[in-house]
Formats: sequence, C-alpha cells, structure tokens
Amino acid sequence: MTEGVEWAVHCCVVLSQAVEPVSAAQLAELHGVSKTYLAKHLQQLSRAGLVRSTRGRVGGYELTRAAAKVSLLDIVEAVDGPEPAFRCTEIRQRGPLATPPEKCLKPCGVARAMGAAEQAWRRSLASVSVDDLAGSVVRDNGAGTFDALRGWLAPG
Amino acid sequence: MTEGVEWAVHCCVVLSQAVEPVSAAQLAELHGVSKTYLAKHLQQLSRAGLVRSTRGRVGGYELTRAAAKVSLLDIVEAVDGPEPAFRCTEIRQRGPLATPPEKCLKPCGVARAMGAAEQAWRRSLASVSVDDLAGSVVRDNGAGTFDALRGWLAPG
Repeated sequence: MTEGVEWAVHCCVVLSQAVEPVSAAQLAELHGVSKTYLAKHLQQLSRAGLVRSTRGRVGGYELTRAAAKVSLLDIVEAVDGPEPAFRCTEIRQRGPLATPPEKCLKPCGVARAMGAAEQAWRRSLASVSVDDLAGSVVRDNGAGTFDALRGWLAPG
Repeated sequence: MTEGVEWAVHCCVVLSQAVEPVSAAQLAELHGVSKTYLAKHLQQLSRAGLVRSTRGRVGGYELTRAAAKVSLLDIVEAVDGPEPAFRCTEIRQRGPLATPPEKCLKPCGVARAMGAAEQAWRRSLASVSVDDLAGSVVRDNGAGTFDALRGWLAPG
C-alpha cells in the first residue's frame, strides 16, 4: 500500500468537516506536506469521483457525496487502484506435469484462497466510512477538534 | 505482495505430497522456473522454520511439520515479512493543528481501521492450510494428480 493512501484519507476527513471548499494549499499546510505532493493524491480522489474542485470566490475541494457514503475502500482504490495484491501467474500450467489449459478454467485453490483473504480485507475497509473516521477523531480528541479546524479554515 | 509468495505456496503443496525430500532442482524443474530464482524463496521458507533441507542419499527439502499445521499466512509472512501493508506516519502530529504527542498514545482511527482490515486478511489466510490447498488440487483435478507427482519425483 502506498503512503498516499494515508494522506488521501486524512484529506477526506478534513473535507467532511469543512463548511466550504478547502484549497489544496490549505490541505497541504494543514498536513505539513508540499502542495505538489498532495496535488497528485487530490487528483486521484477527483478522478475516482470522491471529491470535486470548485472555482470562484471559495475555490477548493469538497466531497461529492455525504461522508457516510465514502468508504475507506473507495479511497484506497482511488489511490492504489482496484487491482488485487496477489496476482496468479498460473504456475500450475508450467513444467512437466502442467495442468492442461482446459482444466484451468477456474482459478486454482491458491488463487481462490488468496482472493478470499483480499475479499475479507475489502469488506472490512468498505465497512468504515469517512464519517466513521471523523467520529473516531472526536471520540479520541474531543468535540472541539473540528471546531478548531473550522476556525483555522475560515477565510479572513 | 511479491510473486515469490505464489512459488513458495506451490512448493509447500508439492512437499506436502512427496514421500521423500525433494531437491531444489526438482522443485525448479517441476514449476518451470530457474533454480537460482527458487533458491531464494526456499531459503525464506527455511528461515521461517516451515521447511528444512536434509542431506544424504535423498537430499532435499521437506516440511518441518504436518501440512495441516502450515497456513497460507505462515508462507506469506515467510516470503513477504510480517510488516503491515499500511504504515501510519502520524499525520495527525503535523501541521498547525497538530495533535500533541501525549494525546497520540494509541493509534488514530485511520490506522485502527486499516489494521482491522489487515487483521481480517490475516485471519482468512491463517484459516487455510497447505493440507487444505492440496485437498483443493485433488477436488479440481482428481485423485490421480498427486500420484503422477509422486511418480515423477521417485528416484530412478
């Protein structure tokens, strides 16, 4: 998993609590990271349809839907892609005892077991929303945490 | 996940069905891969205590314990290491609204949710043994599959 996932998740949590769109510069400053670095991950979130950028007086990023409808899996897949971590190279079809192709129409037991484990991982990520994560920040650090954030984000 | 995992799992399934230790050269030929390449992964399995190499008339590799006691997780960790895929870099401690260190004694909500998903993945991998995988080969390809393997492995 790439480091960008962590940045992207934190950005989504911030956006879920902001009253107005948040600029890339503000997201970068807030997280102590360069704007150039963050821009790539904001683009990935945008391409996946999780955030959109708005122009005008208050230009910046906002979530495209309710935070309860954006899952951790949505963000992980936006940044790292939907490809499975385990790629079966059909080892069973190699060597002197190769299984003939016509007997390899379904994935082998190894690929099935690896796939089941990844499904369990995906299901777990899909069960947690950005709204849940924001709730855990409040439980950990108190209700004032996001008030401070909104104060910092407020123009002027 | 590295490609070596797939090779290592297939080797363990073969070893679970062999009557005598299997040489690295045989394992390489059987899987249509170079001995040099496979040697690295056999060493990883050996270092993790899953296989041992024997010398003497029939030198080669064998499992150190019953195939039902070697899980897919054991093999994945032997090859790819036990480190989690998600590494939290404590983003919450950065920037102008940084959470003070004394409030960061437990992992943040993001890290907890990522950790829970990886636990689900590990639990699933831990629930499948090399013996289960050998059983799935028999179910897929018939009971004769491993007889052919034992015939091929037999010396002479």
